[in-house]
Amino acid sequence: MRATMIHAPGDIRVEDVPEPKIIKPTDAIIRTVATCVCGSDLWAYRGLDPVADSHPMGHEYVGVVEEVGSEVTSVRPGQFVVGSFATSDNTCPNCLAGYQSSCVHREVMSTCQAEYVRIPNAEGTLVSTAELPGEQLLPSLLTLSDVMGTGWYAAKAAEVGPGSTAVVVGDGAVGLCGVIATKELGAARIIAMSRHENRQKLALEFGATDIVTERGEEGVAQVRELTGGVGADSVLECVGTAQSMQQALKATRPGGNVGFVGVPHDVAIDGQELFFSHVGLRGGPAPVRAYLPDLIDRVLTGRINPGKVFDLTLPLEQVAEGYKAMDERRAIKALLTP
Amino acid sequence: MRATMIHAPGDIRVEDVPEPKIIKPTDAIIRTVATCVCGSDLWAYRGLDPVADSHPMGHEYVGVVEEVGSEVTSVRPGQFVVGSFATSDNTCPNCLAGYQSSCVHREVMSTCQAEYVRIPNAEGTLVSTAELPGEQLLPSLLTLSDVMGTGWYAAKAAEVGPGSTAVVVGDGAVGLCGVIATKELGAARIIAMSRHENRQKLALEFGATDIVTERGEEGVAQVRELTGGVGADSVLECVGTAQSMQQALKATRPGGNVGFVGVPHDVAIDGQELFFSHVGLRGGPAPVRAYLPDLIDRVLTGRINPGKVFDLTLPLEQVAEGYKAMDERRAIKALLTP
Repeated sequence: MRATMIHAPGDIRVEDVPEPKIIKPTDAIIRTVATCVCGSDLWAYRGLDPVADSHPMGHEYVGVVEEVGSEVTSVRPGQFVVGSFATSDNTCPNCLAGYQSSCVHREVMSTCQAEYVRIPNAEGTLVSTAELPGEQLLPSLLTLSDVMGTGWYAAKAAEVGPGSTAVVVGDGAVGLCGVIATKELGAARIIAMSRHENRQKLALEFGATDIVTERGEEGVAQVRELTGGVGADSVLECVGTAQSMQQALKATRPGGNVGFVGVPHDVAIDGQELFFSHVGLRGGPAPVRAYLPDLIDRVLTGRINPGKVFDLTLPLEQVAEGYKAMDERRAIKALLTP
Repeated sequence: MRATMIHAPGDIRVEDVPEPKIIKPTDAIIRTVATCVCGSDLWAYRGLDPVADSHPMGHEYVGVVEEVGSEVTSVRPGQFVVGSFATSDNTCPNCLAGYQSSCVHREVMSTCQAEYVRIPNAEGTLVSTAELPGEQLLPSLLTLSDVMGTGWYAAKAAEVGPGSTAVVVGDGAVGLCGVIATKELGAARIIAMSRHENRQKLALEFGATDIVTERGEEGVAQVRELTGGVGADSVLECVGTAQSMQQALKATRPGGNVGFVGVPHDVAIDGQELFFSHVGLRGGPAPVRAYLPDLIDRVLTGRINPGKVFDLTLPLEQVAEGYKAMDERRAIKALLTP
């Protein structure tokens, strides 16, 4: 089959590799219907995460079940499924607490930019739809595999509630999905921090009420001005740099919350600063699995349309151009069809 | 009047100073009935916080109102009052959000180890009792000014709830009061981390169900063993060192919460470590004022007896011995009577 490999920073290729097989009785094999490039894939592409060996890429997927292991009963061949970028048994104490991305049997997907994918812990990871969804729904369903679920978690971790004021730091696909989540969770005021016109437009379409184009101290000052000098109730940190974390913490009111979902790179939080801020902080890889049934429903009923974050669609063979376009910020997010 | 001054690390003296006067119409003057030495006072005493100039000491107090400014109507001369170590107007947005210790008009008390004290923001800071309380209740009421309120906040910030498992890191007065708080908030299992026999005894009396004497990695391993390998729902960090923070974060289950109330000294939290832990973190100076009515009620009805943390009572004149005894860990906490 055809699959995406990275060989070195900037060196992405589609190659022939063996088709995956059932290894454990808890596995499933899916035929990929759509997959995509994630902002976090760019860390390796840009050489900011080391690329020690050539390895496959991709952790987002929707597909049709081809085959299941003997212990998998929740999905069957022929069904359309969505699953999380982190697999889970959905029965361990961490899963039962709603943190499936800390499942004691977690395996993080990394082979999904390919024609077929092996899904470990299939029983607890995959959620099927009643019917094969129409093609126009595929982009939105695909976002549930990571970015929409991650935006949702950011909003939950930031404790967005009805009538609250929320700030979204980061205008990538996750930040934009975070805007959708804050809107769905009832925020009355949604301040999106964005410097790119096309992303501002999408943020407003998704429910943002205000756009702040400044960053750092100036951006924080803008947020404070918009929030009566106090800061926001909830801030979604969707980038993962030291600057974006500072921006998020300082834009939050005492007693407010920051949900951080950008994988932190060189971020250290000063204990005394956090102490005197009175800000609550929770982050991590999103427990996407927990939200899938609800989010699938919101997509199928047309309530949300996060698939709009895909502004580039390419055949899998052109995956390298997808990385390049995102790296150069010509695209927000690239969808790939095998 | 007689008041406590620090002149250099280790150099604590009671001296004659002018009596405080009403400066602003929002002030009150109280005659101190009881005050005490705080664990946080020891940072300066030990030279771990700089002592640039000679200055007064003390931020915990109960007393009788002597005089009030023209804008103070909620308390009147002759009333017995308890107040927070941080003053608040109790009307600003941060106060209304329940974070009175981030009041926009906050002043942190620092002259309370004395015969008389000026209380800024008296209207929003002081809470009076209906009658003059009996002498046996004074120690417990005094703890509400800081340590009991701080232990309560630690438990609230750690989201202790009915049936939960809580860990308390630190066996000082705040940690011991944290045990009381977790018990009152319904924790089913309360693991106190303590190496001192007399403090272990008090922790058990206050409601601890388990004692862990190990620290660091070993202590964390013990907590994990006691919690089915997963970690605790809630951890109260009542010390403020890098080690105690690490211990707290690692003892918490994914999705659990750390409430940290020890003022952090040289604590930096690694962003990526916090990210993958899935632990929620909130700290800060406790909004004691928010809890005073409820906690006064719990003390007056005999439901809680946090005054037991005072194992040394001295006349104000012997305050230096109070600091010394706490520094040498001969006393948990020293009560002073002017």
